[in-house]
Amino acid sequence: MKAVRLHEIGGPANAGLDEVPQPQPSQRETLVRVRAAALNHRDVFITQGLYPNIKLPCILGADGAGEANGNAVVIDPAMGWGEDERVWRPDSSILGVPRDGTFAQYVAVPAGNVHAKPAHLSMEEAATIPLAGVTAYRAVFTRGELRVGETVLITGIGGGVQTFALLYAKAAGARVIVTSSSDEKLQRAKDLGADLTLNYRTDAEWHKAARKAGGPIDLAIDSAGGETFARILGLVRPGGRVVTYGGTAGDAKIKMFPVFWNQLDIRGTSMGSPADFRAMLEFISEHRIKPVIDRVYDVSEIVPAMERMQDAAQFGKIVLRLP
Amino acid sequence: MKAVRLHEIGGPANAGLDEVPQPQPSQRETLVRVRAAALNHRDVFITQGLYPNIKLPCILGADGAGEANGNAVVIDPAMGWGEDERVWRPDSSILGVPRDGTFAQYVAVPAGNVHAKPAHLSMEEAATIPLAGVTAYRAVFTRGELRVGETVLITGIGGGVQTFALLYAKAAGARVIVTSSSDEKLQRAKDLGADLTLNYRTDAEWHKAARKAGGPIDLAIDSAGGETFARILGLVRPGGRVVTYGGTAGDAKIKMFPVFWNQLDIRGTSMGSPADFRAMLEFISEHRIKPVIDRVYDVSEIVPAMERMQDAAQFGKIVLRLP
Repeated sequence: MKAVRLHEIGGPANAGLDEVPQPQPSQRETLVRVRAAALNHRDVFITQGLYPNIKLPCILGADGAGEANGNAVVIDPAMGWGEDERVWRPDSSILGVPRDGTFAQYVAVPAGNVHAKPAHLSMEEAATIPLAGVTAYRAVFTRGELRVGETVLITGIGGGVQTFALLYAKAAGARVIVTSSSDEKLQRAKDLGADLTLNYRTDAEWHKAARKAGGPIDLAIDSAGGETFARILGLVRPGGRVVTYGGTAGDAKIKMFPVFWNQLDIRGTSMGSPADFRAMLEFISEHRIKPVIDRVYDVSEIVPAMERMQDAAQFGKIVLRLP
Repeated sequence: MKAVRLHEIGGPANAGLDEVPQPQPSQRETLVRVRAAALNHRDVFITQGLYPNIKLPCILGADGAGEANGNAVVIDPAMGWGEDERVWRPDSSILGVPRDGTFAQYVAVPAGNVHAKPAHLSMEEAATIPLAGVTAYRAVFTRGELRVGETVLITGIGGGVQTFALLYAKAAGARVIVTSSSDEKLQRAKDLGADLTLNYRTDAEWHKAARKAGGPIDLAIDSAGGETFARILGLVRPGGRVVTYGGTAGDAKIKMFPVFWNQLDIRGTSMGSPADFRAMLEFISEHRIKPVIDRVYDVSEIVPAMERMQDAAQFGKIVLRLP
């Protein structure tokens, strides 16, 4: 079968399409014929050697949709989350390194990780869901506890998680404020229903504009960390929640006063549990959520596809089509 | 009646015992004959001008116990918390500035703020409860959600809130780790049931000792902020909780990674709601909690009493006896 393998650490250019043996599923596994896969920053980070336990060569990819036992399916990429809904087990992992991933014509995964594809979605659309979709679902609902009529701030719109978060929040009846350094991305967000868009590069005082025009912010969802995270602690209303799922802008120097005086909740989140994944699929089907696809590439175009993600040029998910 | 009033901003020395008219309760208020009161850092901060809305002269004091309508009572110092259990109203306040407080022979308070004194406590003991006791109760249970068998870290033992937190946590069946810069305070904490004591001044690596000897920490309770707060984010177990109710050591530079990867909860807290206050009184009665009294002063000794608090020399609560 054809599969994208990483041969050497050193960036996306070291990923290539190889002919490799088809995986042999164990008794507890299901063999999925992958029709579409999607990229995550994680895949790029792996080519850069930023993850532990990388054994070379390895097949990349966490997100995939295809067929199994005659059904259209989508794969939950959480491997061994464990019994605790609060947090994954320290030895749990994500599909695609160290375990062979979805950038291949076939992938063998634990049977419990295979779910029916939402009927209203194409294979390409379904392939975008797993990692970003469940991360956003857990951030917005399980951890963020978003309620109808609330206002949510989503920082750095454009990536997969943020875009899913925007779609979910609108479907759940919330007001949504988004930020970006790109007016083009802000316009796309507006087209998807964002109620207020703020450019943090051209407006250094965006947080003041958010407070003024946005009213009380009940929930903020952030993966930047750094100064952005510090600022949003002063932005959310007393009793409000801040969910963090990353720290791309580095450490945050925070003032304690607004945290304790306003009795804020700061909630870290990563990935999602199997229960989150099932609830997300139901939510997507019920609200007929249409994921945002940035571009679809043939799997042979893996290098330019990953480079687009490396440059953060995308809006929504980058998809690979498998032959 | 006799009352401690602040005449000028400038520190505890500007508080003095005056003869003033007895307050006239409105129809919604109850007049309490105060028998004992207790000091909080807040009282010292007010003499230093660190609170807004100070009108001079004013009667100090948030904590009090005494008699009302023939019953022994203790006063809930939360004025106008509001309907939201998550957070107090922005216009709510604490008894004792701007409203006349408990360092007086009589105080008039809203009738709903007057509760029966736990029967097993003396007036002096009951007077120590209100502000510190409810802050600790909300930190440990309402916000901290401490469960039997868990391990809790309490930083900077010695103050009123930390000492109540230690007593509550032991009564609730938890293991307790405490830190202090004073071996004497650590010994006192051990006498009160602390399972592990760590001196952060003589042991710069106390956080490593806590991890090694203490096992997984489920909950940390901190009012230091600064470097202590940053450190405990790396100490609590995956899925654990950190409750903060202060920032005496200043801003905290935090790493985002442990927060999102370990899916931590950081929960700010201040004071306690009327529901917290009632639940606390029940808990104290049920477990026959005996508050820790540092020293009892006559109200005429207000200046040395406040100076002892200013110097953070106390272990437990400093009490004033009213004539």
